[in-house]
Amino acid sequence: MNNNITMTLNADKLILMALQEDISSEDVSTNAVMPKAQKGEAQLICKQDGILAGLFVFRRVFELLDQDIQVEFQFSDGDKVKNKDVIGTITGDIRAILSGERTALNYLQRMSGIATYTSSIAALLEKSKTKLLDTRKTTPNNRIFEKYAVKTGGGFNHRYNLSDGVLLKDNHIGAAGGVRAAVEMAKEYAPFVRKIEIECESVAMVREAVEAGADIVMLDNMSLEEMKEAIAWIDGRAEIECSGNVTRENIEQYISLGVDYISSGALTHSAPIMDISLKNLHVV
Amino acid sequence: MNNNITMTLNADKLILMALQEDISSEDVSTNAVMPKAQKGEAQLICKQDGILAGLFVFRRVFELLDQDIQVEFQFSDGDKVKNKDVIGTITGDIRAILSGERTALNYLQRMSGIATYTSSIAALLEKSKTKLLDTRKTTPNNRIFEKYAVKTGGGFNHRYNLSDGVLLKDNHIGAAGGVRAAVEMAKEYAPFVRKIEIECESVAMVREAVEAGADIVMLDNMSLEEMKEAIAWIDGRAEIECSGNVTRENIEQYISLGVDYISSGALTHSAPIMDISLKNLHVV
Amino acid sequence: MNNNITMTLNADKLILMALQEDISSEDVSTNAVMPKAQKGEAQLICKQDGILAGLFVFRRVFELLDQDIQVEFQFSDGDKVKNKDVIGTITGDIRAILSGERTALNYLQRMSGIATYTSSIAALLEKSKTKLLDTRKTTPNNRIFEKYAVKTGGGFNHRYNLSDGVLLKDNHIGAAGGVRAAVEMAKEYAPFVRKIEIECESVAMVREAVEAGADIVMLDNMSLEEMKEAIAWIDGRAEIECSGNVTRENIEQYISLGVDYISSGALTHSAPIMDISLKNLHVV
Amino acid sequence: MNNNITMTLNADKLILMALQEDISSEDVSTNAVMPKAQKGEAQLICKQDGILAGLFVFRRVFELLDQDIQVEFQFSDGDKVKNKDVIGTITGDIRAILSGERTALNYLQRMSGIATYTSSIAALLEKSKTKLLDTRKTTPNNRIFEKYAVKTGGGFNHRYNLSDGVLLKDNHIGAAGGVRAAVEMAKEYAPFVRKIEIECESVAMVREAVEAGADIVMLDNMSLEEMKEAIAWIDGRAEIECSGNVTRENIEQYISLGVDYISSGALTHSAPIMDISLKNLHVV
Amino acid sequence: MNNNITMTLNADKLILMALQEDISSEDVSTNAVMPKAQKGEAQLICKQDGILAGLFVFRRVFELLDQDIQVEFQFSDGDKVKNKDVIGTITGDIRAILSGERTALNYLQRMSGIATYTSSIAALLEKSKTKLLDTRKTTPNNRIFEKYAVKTGGGFNHRYNLSDGVLLKDNHIGAAGGVRAAVEMAKEYAPFVRKIEIECESVAMVREAVEAGADIVMLDNMSLEEMKEAIAWIDGRAEIECSGNVTRENIEQYISLGVDYISSGALTHSAPIMDISLKNLHVV
Amino acid sequence: MNNNITMTLNADKLILMALQEDISSEDVSTNAVMPKAQKGEAQLICKQDGILAGLFVFRRVFELLDQDIQVEFQFSDGDKVKNKDVIGTITGDIRAILSGERTALNYLQRMSGIATYTSSIAALLEKSKTKLLDTRKTTPNNRIFEKYAVKTGGGFNHRYNLSDGVLLKDNHIGAAGGVRAAVEMAKEYAPFVRKIEIECESVAMVREAVEAGADIVMLDNMSLEEMKEAIAWIDGRAEIECSGNVTRENIEQYISLGVDYISSGALTHSAPIMDISLKNLHVV
Repeated sequence: MNNNITMTLNADKLILMALQEDISSEDVSTNAVMPKAQKGEAQLICKQDGILAGLFVFRRVFELLDQDIQVEFQFSDGDKVKNKDVIGTITGDIRAILSGERTALNYLQRMSGIATYTSSIAALLEKSKTKLLDTRKTTPNNRIFEKYAVKTGGGFNHRYNLSDGVLLKDNHIGAAGGVRAAVEMAKEYAPFVRKIEIECESVAMVREAVEAGADIVMLDNMSLEEMKEAIAWIDGRAEIECSGNVTRENIEQYISLGVDYISSGALTHSAPIMDISLKNLHVV
Repeated sequence: MNNNITMTLNADKLILMALQEDISSEDVSTNAVMPKAQKGEAQLICKQDGILAGLFVFRRVFELLDQDIQVEFQFSDGDKVKNKDVIGTITGDIRAILSGERTALNYLQRMSGIATYTSSIAALLEKSKTKLLDTRKTTPNNRIFEKYAVKTGGGFNHRYNLSDGVLLKDNHIGAAGGVRAAVEMAKEYAPFVRKIEIECESVAMVREAVEAGADIVMLDNMSLEEMKEAIAWIDGRAEIECSGNVTRENIEQYISLGVDYISSGALTHSAPIMDISLKNLHVV
Repeated sequence: MNNNITMTLNADKLILMALQEDISSEDVSTNAVMPKAQKGEAQLICKQDGILAGLFVFRRVFELLDQDIQVEFQFSDGDKVKNKDVIGTITGDIRAILSGERTALNYLQRMSGIATYTSSIAALLEKSKTKLLDTRKTTPNNRIFEKYAVKTGGGFNHRYNLSDGVLLKDNHIGAAGGVRAAVEMAKEYAPFVRKIEIECESVAMVREAVEAGADIVMLDNMSLEEMKEAIAWIDGRAEIECSGNVTRENIEQYISLGVDYISSGALTHSAPIMDISLKNLHVV
Repeated sequence: MNNNITMTLNADKLILMALQEDISSEDVSTNAVMPKAQKGEAQLICKQDGILAGLFVFRRVFELLDQDIQVEFQFSDGDKVKNKDVIGTITGDIRAILSGERTALNYLQRMSGIATYTSSIAALLEKSKTKLLDTRKTTPNNRIFEKYAVKTGGGFNHRYNLSDGVLLKDNHIGAAGGVRAAVEMAKEYAPFVRKIEIECESVAMVREAVEAGADIVMLDNMSLEEMKEAIAWIDGRAEIECSGNVTRENIEQYISLGVDYISSGALTHSAPIMDISLKNLHVV
Repeated sequence: MNNNITMTLNADKLILMALQEDISSEDVSTNAVMPKAQKGEAQLICKQDGILAGLFVFRRVFELLDQDIQVEFQFSDGDKVKNKDVIGTITGDIRAILSGERTALNYLQRMSGIATYTSSIAALLEKSKTKLLDTRKTTPNNRIFEKYAVKTGGGFNHRYNLSDGVLLKDNHIGAAGGVRAAVEMAKEYAPFVRKIEIECESVAMVREAVEAGADIVMLDNMSLEEMKEAIAWIDGRAEIECSGNVTRENIEQYISLGVDYISSGALTHSAPIMDISLKNLHVV
Repeated sequence: MNNNITMTLNADKLILMALQEDISSEDVSTNAVMPKAQKGEAQLICKQDGILAGLFVFRRVFELLDQDIQVEFQFSDGDKVKNKDVIGTITGDIRAILSGERTALNYLQRMSGIATYTSSIAALLEKSKTKLLDTRKTTPNNRIFEKYAVKTGGGFNHRYNLSDGVLLKDNHIGAAGGVRAAVEMAKEYAPFVRKIEIECESVAMVREAVEAGADIVMLDNMSLEEMKEAIAWIDGRAEIECSGNVTRENIEQYISLGVDYISSGALTHSAPIMDISLKNLHVV
């Protein structure tokens, strides 16, 4: 995301499709009144406090429309900004600025919204060893942008998708015939660079998982007492993830238990956007 | 969206890409433990009250993975459901159910979230003539799904994109050399089935717009007094749209003014998802 | 079409496919005899009188093949040219000129053919208020080019496609249960920026349509007397379109009736090409 | 074209794109008034005499939209039909019939127009040994359909594209350093299954070409006398193609000369469509 | 690979492209002589001993061409077969069998060649704890097929690609400023389900890597003595991979050292194909 | 292949897909340790003797990743190189060099391997009139690269695919009803620039083929005596191809018989790669 290679190989196609979604034949309003190029300039301005993410994507939208557009930023991804801060300036053919504005902002606002929300949750974990993870509950065809935004906001990425991480759930365990069998089958089948994670609902399952060599144990639906017992039993032989709705109340509990990771789907599926707008477009 | 043609032509490609985003080579966990097909069944269950939208998309995700999967619903798009309601049942190869689950839910939760939020805002307008409109502030590569969800929730759709609606903003007006010129150039240029909408910031602009034959006037940044004057002046010769942050307080004002439409970007950019999950997957 | 944004988003893909259609592996003839780049120049010359359309597309074909090719024009789209006029000059690697020539001419000849034919029909309407419209009877995967050519030739564009214009025909009316119901359902369903057009076969239908708020009425299969009655009845409350085979004889009739629009499929489906060729390719 | 394999591999993608060109989001008119499937039937009817081509493509348009649609034909490609003949019947969901109608007819009318026109020219050659060839002057992204239509109408196909046929023109000859060198370089470079064709403007060039082993000689810009001399000289050692505007007058000349082939770009670039329409759509 | 989901999402697109590579317009030979479908049958026969891999892909080639083709196998992937064994039978339209034959065999021969070669190398490691790994030295756009073939032949898969495995090489170490820094940066950056592998060229580097928490150490360019020292030092705290040209001589050495993995690029980049052919195609 | 047009139209898409195959989201290792661009340089070095093919492709891989990368070569395609020769130098952002290295080498090694092997076989035919041909036994989605490599190594290309060459096999002959009928149907159906090749298993078939006007005869499964008889009978009226496993022994036979062409699938399906590597990457 933060470099040209990732953009070229995996983001450009999505950005171009988003532009085509918004311009299926031509930008009728703009073409009606502006038959010729006219150089203009506009400013990108915060309309609320937050954490920026996606400046590269914002710029890329315009580069893909018109290679002569210049976008200069005063801030970088991850920076805290305040309401009314001028994030940057865009200069070029006004037609391209008008045609790309909505798509560029749709990306930037959503990504910055995720970074802002992630940052507020990550702050609760700041002094603990527990880290905040995202999930696969991302918006379809936006995962590469949303996972980057989580990282920019201070979170950590769980597996990218079903192909690059192993997470054995109850149905996998059932199909394999038990925890041990599931872990062993996964170790045999999965590329050897994968860690094996397994979801456990009881201390007994946790024991079997660790003995079978699971690298990560996800504690699921356990009482506080059970979690304590499981964690004591694991004793550092596997990493521990808890998943669930993170609130100010329960987060203390997870921290005090000393789990390694808490994962939260809300980081990507329910963060409100950050309000950012393009202002003062004028001829130069 | 609600028929096979729309799915085939414009949604299937996006859904398939979303599945490939989640499975870039193979579902390692599932393939490790389930070398053969095994028939299973699971239930789709609400975890909160809300309005459903996207059942067709949910089903299509699985159909695209495995044409033998059956998805039966007890509800239809637009139905109000309550926490714990069983929305439907999915039956087929457990491997396909596991591999498609996350993508199917990512669509259904987001679409139902939008419908649910839209419905709550639309309720505020229920007894007035004012209608609730969406905007182009949709998630990139999800517009076809999100606009459908707005409509399912009781909202109305503004233009789909820059190619099928004309909305002249201050920069268009400036480039054309004035309100009248902008409206006339748009009438000349745009396909004749288009209405011409123009954003006006003063009563004087409104007058010029209506006289030039604008079909829709968007009142932007006007005081209550100015809006009243503008509306009186328009006197039914054009439709009137107001755009802005809809709140319980200001919505009364718009209603009392009698504007035709209020548009809100939040319907699509900031609605939290509706919590829905797939439960009780078991062999049958 | 007339700007880089439209080309990038919606024409480039089609042009590249057209090139690949003509060069599925390599240009065998050229590669056999020209292993190395050699700079050349050729002239684009009219072989008949006509109206030019598609110069941008002609240039783009070569730009997509080889970014160093220069194409300079002495004329612009919409210009009248005469047999033997030199339209422009192309300079660059002869191999790219040879490989792109046919595809570039296939576009330019067809588009200019449409503009030329449209212009000849539009001339018949010149002193009337009646405007000439195109239809959706375009060549598959060439609509964006052909609709632009119609406009360049002095015609006007009807709806672009089924997604951006509403036109209710007899089957729609039948399914809805009547003219009034059809218009009302369309107003409820379609994005509010759409005008509603309806095809009417009798004066009674016209009345019902106008009363239900139709924006445009298409008079279909009516006698001259019926049309007169319908038009009198409409009395400016809706726009009026007539569709049919335009001839010197019947066109007078439509003009005298004072309809707003006449649409003609022949503009795009049966215009002969304009003969243009690339000549005098030589090494420089 | 006439079998499923060609359709699947090389036509379906183009047909689907044509449908998406016409339905970029959804068929608004149809979806507004027909929320549910309704079975209907319509007839495909000739509105003029002609030769049919593209019935398979017509059917495929609907199959790609809705696999339950049935299209039955009373005629086959290549058949002569008369005005008012019923070509076939289409049965299925009325929504799919309405949404696919225009695209299906756009293909069928164009292809049948080409077949009809080709047939009329081929008839002039009927009693001679001279065959009628098409060219690469086809509509972009429609070559596979148009070349098939030429063959259906009684013409023959020249090379499909720049990759599968060798045709050496003056610039190739110049780059190679002469006719002999050009033919030899092509024989060395091109896959050995290719015939080598070369464009000759004088008897001297023809001699050199035949001596160098050219398989086909195209006589270009020669007087009648020169052509006679060239043909006598060739004496069956190469096939002979003439290219140019075929008219009733000049065609006699070519026939009397006994050339093997006459090629004509007009077959594909300027044939008017054949008028065919879908009628009597009604609920069943 | 071994299930429909993987095929649908990630193999079908490649297979369809391979078919289009072989049939860019139509199968001219077949269409010339077989205008109509004719049912036929043929047998898939081994022409040498080997291990089968890719039967699913072989079948899929034909399914994508013609859904009515039946392919029945007497063997499964991973089975040892002997020269002249009948692997299976294909039944259906002879045109589809002829058109798909080459592409289907190109996949099956290559995949079975890789499985056969992998099996011969894996046999050398049979009684040791050392496992055989593949690499990323696969044929472009064939990795999903080739990695599956390695696994079918008894090998194990290293990372699938640069996105799902971390392998820090000398340049990464240099950029990070040292082994420790590189491992720590990777742990911070990479999704937490990834193991961290690092390439070490000295015992000192190995020490630093293990202390920094590397999960896998690749011993590169070390003498036998150094490797022994490194392995002793690691003492089970990390997995050990050796990479290099595996021969009967040196493989004994690696086994005696007790490394966990040996990786070999030759498995995918230099295995000769297994000779398999389609025979006895006849009408039924 | 050796020019920009072929790359742009037909190779770039495949190369980009190969890069995406290797980087499905991002290059995790590189991005973890190199957040910023850093200029570096590396050398491309032979690790064995051979013939180079694919230098253009090697360079293109990097150009597609990062347009600022410079690749300079000391050799050209077709050159003989020796172990340790420095082929060229690559300069640019180290991140792009690391991310593209594997894909670039996968292409170059395979193509050079094919050229090297082809060259060794072609050498056996050097003093004869017999030429060495490739086949369609190429790696799926790599044909354009592999056929170019054969030509670079001194071989000749048979038909590119099923669409651009006619080769009638026993099943085609059976379907047509005999050799004569098959040849005649092909001449009627196939574009007239195609030569007609037919596979013959007896002298009788050869006679019938030549009399019917076949351009090329492939002698299949004939004894030495039969071949002699067939060749004598053909007497220059058709070209002659023999297909089969070329060995030092049997090649003498073919040469002595004086056949025009020997084709060999092994050139593309079983050539081992040529070992080439990127070395000494360092910051500059």
